[in-house]
Amino acid sequence: MPGNTFGHSFRITTWGESHGNAVGVVVDGVPAGLELSEVDVQKELDRRRPGQSEVSTPRSESDTVEILSGVFGGVTTGTPVSMFVRNRNANPGAYDYIKDIPRPGHADLFYMEKYGFRDHRGGGRSSGRETIGRVAGGAIAKKLLMFFGIEVFAHVIELGGIKAGPVTFEAIRDNVERTAVRSADLEAAEKMLEQVRLARDEGDSIGGIVEIIATGMPIGLGEPVFGKLDADIAGGLMSIGAVKGVEVGVGFECARMKGSQMNDAFLVDDGQIVPESNNAGGIIGGLSTGLPLICRAAVKPTPSISKKQKSVNVASMEETGIEIHGRHDPTIPPRMVPVAEAMVALVLTDHMIRGGRMNPEYLLK
Amino acid sequence: MPGNTFGHSFRITTWGESHGNAVGVVVDGVPAGLELSEVDVQKELDRRRPGQSEVSTPRSESDTVEILSGVFGGVTTGTPVSMFVRNRNANPGAYDYIKDIPRPGHADLFYMEKYGFRDHRGGGRSSGRETIGRVAGGAIAKKLLMFFGIEVFAHVIELGGIKAGPVTFEAIRDNVERTAVRSADLEAAEKMLEQVRLARDEGDSIGGIVEIIATGMPIGLGEPVFGKLDADIAGGLMSIGAVKGVEVGVGFECARMKGSQMNDAFLVDDGQIVPESNNAGGIIGGLSTGLPLICRAAVKPTPSISKKQKSVNVASMEETGIEIHGRHDPTIPPRMVPVAEAMVALVLTDHMIRGGRMNPEYLLK
Amino acid sequence: MPGNTFGHSFRITTWGESHGNAVGVVVDGVPAGLELSEVDVQKELDRRRPGQSEVSTPRSESDTVEILSGVFGGVTTGTPVSMFVRNRNANPGAYDYIKDIPRPGHADLFYMEKYGFRDHRGGGRSSGRETIGRVAGGAIAKKLLMFFGIEVFAHVIELGGIKAGPVTFEAIRDNVERTAVRSADLEAAEKMLEQVRLARDEGDSIGGIVEIIATGMPIGLGEPVFGKLDADIAGGLMSIGAVKGVEVGVGFECARMKGSQMNDAFLVDDGQIVPESNNAGGIIGGLSTGLPLICRAAVKPTPSISKKQKSVNVASMEETGIEIHGRHDPTIPPRMVPVAEAMVALVLTDHMIRGGRMNPEYLLK
Amino acid sequence: MPGNTFGHSFRITTWGESHGNAVGVVVDGVPAGLELSEVDVQKELDRRRPGQSEVSTPRSESDTVEILSGVFGGVTTGTPVSMFVRNRNANPGAYDYIKDIPRPGHADLFYMEKYGFRDHRGGGRSSGRETIGRVAGGAIAKKLLMFFGIEVFAHVIELGGIKAGPVTFEAIRDNVERTAVRSADLEAAEKMLEQVRLARDEGDSIGGIVEIIATGMPIGLGEPVFGKLDADIAGGLMSIGAVKGVEVGVGFECARMKGSQMNDAFLVDDGQIVPESNNAGGIIGGLSTGLPLICRAAVKPTPSISKKQKSVNVASMEETGIEIHGRHDPTIPPRMVPVAEAMVALVLTDHMIRGGRMNPEYLLK
Repeated sequence: MPGNTFGHSFRITTWGESHGNAVGVVVDGVPAGLELSEVDVQKELDRRRPGQSEVSTPRSESDTVEILSGVFGGVTTGTPVSMFVRNRNANPGAYDYIKDIPRPGHADLFYMEKYGFRDHRGGGRSSGRETIGRVAGGAIAKKLLMFFGIEVFAHVIELGGIKAGPVTFEAIRDNVERTAVRSADLEAAEKMLEQVRLARDEGDSIGGIVEIIATGMPIGLGEPVFGKLDADIAGGLMSIGAVKGVEVGVGFECARMKGSQMNDAFLVDDGQIVPESNNAGGIIGGLSTGLPLICRAAVKPTPSISKKQKSVNVASMEETGIEIHGRHDPTIPPRMVPVAEAMVALVLTDHMIRGGRMNPEYLLK
Repeated sequence: MPGNTFGHSFRITTWGESHGNAVGVVVDGVPAGLELSEVDVQKELDRRRPGQSEVSTPRSESDTVEILSGVFGGVTTGTPVSMFVRNRNANPGAYDYIKDIPRPGHADLFYMEKYGFRDHRGGGRSSGRETIGRVAGGAIAKKLLMFFGIEVFAHVIELGGIKAGPVTFEAIRDNVERTAVRSADLEAAEKMLEQVRLARDEGDSIGGIVEIIATGMPIGLGEPVFGKLDADIAGGLMSIGAVKGVEVGVGFECARMKGSQMNDAFLVDDGQIVPESNNAGGIIGGLSTGLPLICRAAVKPTPSISKKQKSVNVASMEETGIEIHGRHDPTIPPRMVPVAEAMVALVLTDHMIRGGRMNPEYLLK
Repeated sequence: MPGNTFGHSFRITTWGESHGNAVGVVVDGVPAGLELSEVDVQKELDRRRPGQSEVSTPRSESDTVEILSGVFGGVTTGTPVSMFVRNRNANPGAYDYIKDIPRPGHADLFYMEKYGFRDHRGGGRSSGRETIGRVAGGAIAKKLLMFFGIEVFAHVIELGGIKAGPVTFEAIRDNVERTAVRSADLEAAEKMLEQVRLARDEGDSIGGIVEIIATGMPIGLGEPVFGKLDADIAGGLMSIGAVKGVEVGVGFECARMKGSQMNDAFLVDDGQIVPESNNAGGIIGGLSTGLPLICRAAVKPTPSISKKQKSVNVASMEETGIEIHGRHDPTIPPRMVPVAEAMVALVLTDHMIRGGRMNPEYLLK
Repeated sequence: MPGNTFGHSFRITTWGESHGNAVGVVVDGVPAGLELSEVDVQKELDRRRPGQSEVSTPRSESDTVEILSGVFGGVTTGTPVSMFVRNRNANPGAYDYIKDIPRPGHADLFYMEKYGFRDHRGGGRSSGRETIGRVAGGAIAKKLLMFFGIEVFAHVIELGGIKAGPVTFEAIRDNVERTAVRSADLEAAEKMLEQVRLARDEGDSIGGIVEIIATGMPIGLGEPVFGKLDADIAGGLMSIGAVKGVEVGVGFECARMKGSQMNDAFLVDDGQIVPESNNAGGIIGGLSTGLPLICRAAVKPTPSISKKQKSVNVASMEETGIEIHGRHDPTIPPRMVPVAEAMVALVLTDHMIRGGRMNPEYLLK
């Protein structure tokens, strides 16, 4: 089974290569009755697009989206929403010099082995440009969720070894777009930015961690035992290029905790039974607990670096050095923020419909 | 969409509750021509079953499997393999005292909210007994993979704060079944066991980390961009109860690395291009690299503890203490080893078929 | 992708061979809160089971069902319902004489080619016994639909060239179980029975047509453009062994009609807009119209006949005669009635949930 | 689950409305290595497009396709192929007069009930223009199948009560594009054409039957028991708007046959065991037999007619007459020929991959 569709009751099918004609997405399962225009989608794409700050690639793309179907009179009709973005600043020739030299840390060699040959133009399908479809689909998901009071947002909590201090949800909402690194701890953000500059100057790159939060969560979202909410989120986040780890709540730290520390005890609050802490990160047994969903993705340093690396020429089978001077980001997490939000929003919307909490036909029912 | 089916071209559908009549699995997509008997499945179930050592629950279940279909003359026929295990030592009455008191760290309350009410007998579907179906299905997957030289095995690398030292693959194969904690570093295993005893004596529990490895990997397994190999593995591992984090290769450590450190350079070895290191854990761009697959799951401490915890009686809505004296494991990772192996084996088998590398009809073709 | 799962939001996975240990089904997506016991399922299985009348095979099977999971205290819990039936009167040795001789009209030869070899015992998976899982799953679907006032029932409208006259829905409900041939036109039923006897005495078999009706239909059920209600019904009915044609409403007769005859005009009835006729059979554009759903399946004569036929011995590759003296039905449509009802009920239940009209978690919501 | 994706291992996701910006398709699962250009797709779209002859709507659309992704250097890369066609001659205003008056035989009223409101411009998603995506996807499927010697073609065998006589496969290939009605019996074609003219002159429309054939079939294609080849074909054909019946081989005629007539006996031919007749239409037990696949779809008369019909104004709830003077076909079967071919080709390609007979990664493997 091919792998370009994500989701079940709400699903996206993405397509497009870095230096082909266009990239896009078909979103199926959007309930009728949602006000939707290009503006809603464009604002998310603008957060993802290249060239937005000094921490991102200088490739210049306006990434202007066109909605091709599924909307009539400014409102969704229940039919699939097709959206696409033309690749304008493609420069495929720039990759000719590495046509035969797979880039370390990239999928070049493995695409070649899998498909017999490959589109060598800037990563082709394995390029970060593939995430445009995710973000466009996620924009619709986010708008649908807001109808139900669910808000998804993300921030960078670690970059190049600099960890952000604890921040409130309000601080994240307020601050995250105020810094190029998208960290809500503005002091740490300064230090992170410094790390980015250092790495860039060395022709190197740095990794980090993105945290994604969803507030306004209903209780009981998730489908045991394989469609658990955390399982779908883990799959969704891990499917983003460069992500090497995913955790929920205290995450890997749970390995060093005792049951009496880890368990979130129950108490009565305002007539409701609620967990008194949130070590679980809002998911227990694969079901949402009603507390905020908190999860994190570990992002490796950008594999494209101008520092010299070792590779092999597949034509001559000779070892060779490689320096990658294409347009690339010195670090990925800041631009991954909207992508990670999109993946979590897509999963939540899917589960809202699967759980009978969002009407799949007409939103206002 | 309900959630009890896992996989696409090779898929399991599991069913059954902790204290119901039975638990089981239907495995669909098993190619014809595989020699298969209950012995193959039983040996994996025996690694999972309760009562096998001092680190596991004293619930006594032989977990004897019966194959009900799909095998004729000792060989699979290409039709679905249905297997089941009767629950013998069920003791549903033992849970009556907590019928109205959701256990902290368990899904009790959230099942209740989702389904209107719940099967309160020992966790019902959210019990660890649910994994019997996974392990039985995984046993078939492991046997299929061995046909192609792919071996999946796992071990405990951290328990109660004790970390195992580096071990070779050979040491894992040799040692893992020699200790109750299933850690291949026998010295660390002793200390881990001590931690388990301490926690049990305190009426508490401890968490840990399981590492899963697959050797003999082909190149290019995985389906971009949402069916990436790591995405499916992350979803599969996170769907196991008690798992709070998943990582591949260096995992979360990548956040502190530079691109020049993280990237696995290429060299020529025996006429083949291979990565010279394996920071990627055998997966880049969602495709297998041919190097061993290495991934880890963080497992929280058993939520059932006899130490007093705070909860609420849902009938009276009064806060109350709760002490859980049922039969439970003081730590989960040792028994999760065969479950985690099963999930990885299921994903790999699915992708072998999806990628056209295992004939879906007749194994010997 | 293997093919033993049917449905999306409500799905069955069936398993089992004619002369293996057992046959069964896992039903996933049953909302919690439905009263369910073996009695509900058994009554449908009794309508399908062999030996019930002179028009069915003398194989004697009580087909006693056991529910293994998903029900607690007589009520569904939202977890998968697993059910199975032991094969008691299996007599695999009876098929040894045709081990190497594929039976004309059966799938024997093609299973052999597909899977490398086959379970030759009475058809194995391609036997009519495979439909036990469908009927058991359909029993749950029918009970769920009755909650919403949707009733599914079927009858034989043609058998061995004898056509039933027009009958009311009431006559179908009243009469269908009063005759061995399950035709509601009791006069025609007599003649059909005569045809069955004649065919049986000649060592031959006859075909016929089953009509399935659903009343109490909501409006707008179905998912354009590939999950249309009629598309799913057509696929479901055609998946039953021996069905060679499917039609909805006037069906094939539409080929000879004009638009002005075929179109169902609209009028106002009791404040609602309704079609004034039902040529469409209750489905237009793949969506239910609110009028009764009417569809039909053409069923070929039983391929197993004792009359001599020509075949080939696959071992010697010599042409040979074959007479099939196993236990078989002289005609299939009467026993297919509950199977066809099950398939339509499964599709409708699936679409009720997909369309947000039946809560997937808790039925009483 | 929404319904705009068809297929499993080879799948299309279609989108677009009759009078929106564009219509299109994403084809996922195309193996790398297939030579593909717009020419391959355009030639199929040209067979489907409006205005091609006197039997089709005068709406003038060139339906020029653009391939947006998945092809590099004239060859498929294994990534999704996205294709689209701009709607040029859309004239949404032409439908304003029937904005509130649902057209009999159309889905207007039922879309309105399902989605709360609807895109009233010429059927929106339920328009025949939706099939552009199917035909574009089918063009790729047909080209892939030709690699394996499988050819899919269709013809009109009945129109307005005129039946074509028996024709050879060669006659179909030679003649079908020589007549506007796409019937291979040229004499009957003349009479059919006469019926079309008569109906058009009366402001009426006529129905018919399309037969689809696939030659060069392998043995054993199909996935028991719900993914049988005939089940998938039935679902695929029934999902085309206006189809009310589907049959395989002798189809409904089997109801009047005896087993001894229906069964295709086996004989030895050229060292192979083959059925000596093809009453089964190339499928038994849901598996292909190796003989030509033969199936038929019954197509209702075009619901849009200029003859006066009865309907109701949904705003005033008053009964009213309606005459439809939009651009429409007086009969559908001739233009459905390429659509029906596409659906069968899509199913066969899907099953070729599912059955391990077409490499899903690299066609030339």
